[in-house]
Amino acid sequence: MLICEVIGHVWATKKQPELEGMKLMVVRETQTNEKNNKTFVAADTVGAGVGEQVLVVDGSTARRALGADDLPVDCAIVGIIDTLEVEREKKSK
Amino acid sequence: MLICEVIGHVWATKKQPELEGMKLMVVRETQTNEKNNKTFVAADTVGAGVGEQVLVVDGSTARRALGADDLPVDCAIVGIIDTLEVEREKKSK
Amino acid sequence: MLICEVIGHVWATKKQPELEGMKLMVVRETQTNEKNNKTFVAADTVGAGVGEQVLVVDGSTARRALGADDLPVDCAIVGIIDTLEVEREKKSK
Amino acid sequence: MLICEVIGHVWATKKQPELEGMKLMVVRETQTNEKNNKTFVAADTVGAGVGEQVLVVDGSTARRALGADDLPVDCAIVGIIDTLEVEREKKSK
Amino acid sequence: MLICEVIGHVWATKKQPELEGMKLMVVRETQTNEKNNKTFVAADTVGAGVGEQVLVVDGSTARRALGADDLPVDCAIVGIIDTLEVEREKKSK
Repeated sequence: MLICEVIGHVWATKKQPELEGMKLMVVRETQTNEKNNKTFVAADTVGAGVGEQVLVVDGSTARRALGADDLPVDCAIVGIIDTLEVEREKKSK
Repeated sequence: MLICEVIGHVWATKKQPELEGMKLMVVRETQTNEKNNKTFVAADTVGAGVGEQVLVVDGSTARRALGADDLPVDCAIVGIIDTLEVEREKKSK
Repeated sequence: MLICEVIGHVWATKKQPELEGMKLMVVRETQTNEKNNKTFVAADTVGAGVGEQVLVVDGSTARRALGADDLPVDCAIVGIIDTLEVEREKKSK
Repeated sequence: MLICEVIGHVWATKKQPELEGMKLMVVRETQTNEKNNKTFVAADTVGAGVGEQVLVVDGSTARRALGADDLPVDCAIVGIIDTLEVEREKKSK
Repeated sequence: MLICEVIGHVWATKKQPELEGMKLMVVRETQTNEKNNKTFVAADTVGAGVGEQVLVVDGSTARRALGADDLPVDCAIVGIIDTLEVEREKKSK
């Protein structure tokens, strides 16, 4: 899973019907070095808000997280990080 | 999902028969930093046009978006972005 | 799908039996910026030749393109590009 | 499989119920050059501890490693490395 | 498929039981530019040795190459390259 920060929302009127009602959030990878940090969109499944650090899954696993294999979604937020404890660079939210 | 801009079209006469009739568009990632921005081809499912910001899924999820698991397509446009609201760097289309 | 140029061939005598008879071509991504261009091997399904621009799918989609889910192949050429029309940087083959 | 070092733990109270009880560890790729080293979270399946070098699988394979295809997890630790013997740059843990 | 060089071996005593008996080799991508070359571990299926150039598949395709969909392995060597013929930069092993 990727360690990301929720940094915003995205709205789309014209979209696949299965996306109707999903909370689509803009997330940015935070633990890899600055130059490679990816920003992308993930469907929220745990009530995450902007500014929170979250765990994100992608690919076919995102469809598992959303509970239906035929969904056109490939990234999902599956947890809100309380504490991230990393050797030599201890970090607490 | 990746946040991309539609930047063009691609035509191929010799191709797998399942690609016949698909609208294949050239898209470029826009939210990640410049150096890593990928340009690739996605099948359109929502009537997107050049210049629009779109949501793109890839891998096995693209086949779900296109509604058939045996298609030789691994990228699909699944939504047209109206508004992208990002903390500290608010953006509106 | 990735936009690649066919740049060569690869021969392997010792290989999985399912690869027997496949035309394995060396391809290089051409549309992303120079530094990230990947070079890899894809199985040809459309009669592509060296020097041509092609559409390449990867992962489980490559097995769909080759028509059998149990093949040990994860990249396939699915179309030969006639014209690539990109905004602000029009390109024609 | 990726060669990673376990560098920490992550705790999440709000999460998908299937993640309950899993040991989620922060890992960092160690063999690729410094600039591209990714840091991410993997579920432990072999009793790995901080400071150990481990083998990590991702994508649908992580769900195989965890023994259930419907889990919302896309990275798993599947082995603890005793010795890594690499030509021209012999390394022993 | 990726074009890699076999550069070493990896040993792990504590590992998932399905990995027992597999020959796990350290491989490095060789055709992409130096900066992005990845080093990782792949299960050998064709009797490859250190110093040889090989074709590597990843993701769900690696499980196909190993002949069982429930294996916790996501990279496999599927061929040993005899000759790699690339335009403008002819290479022979």
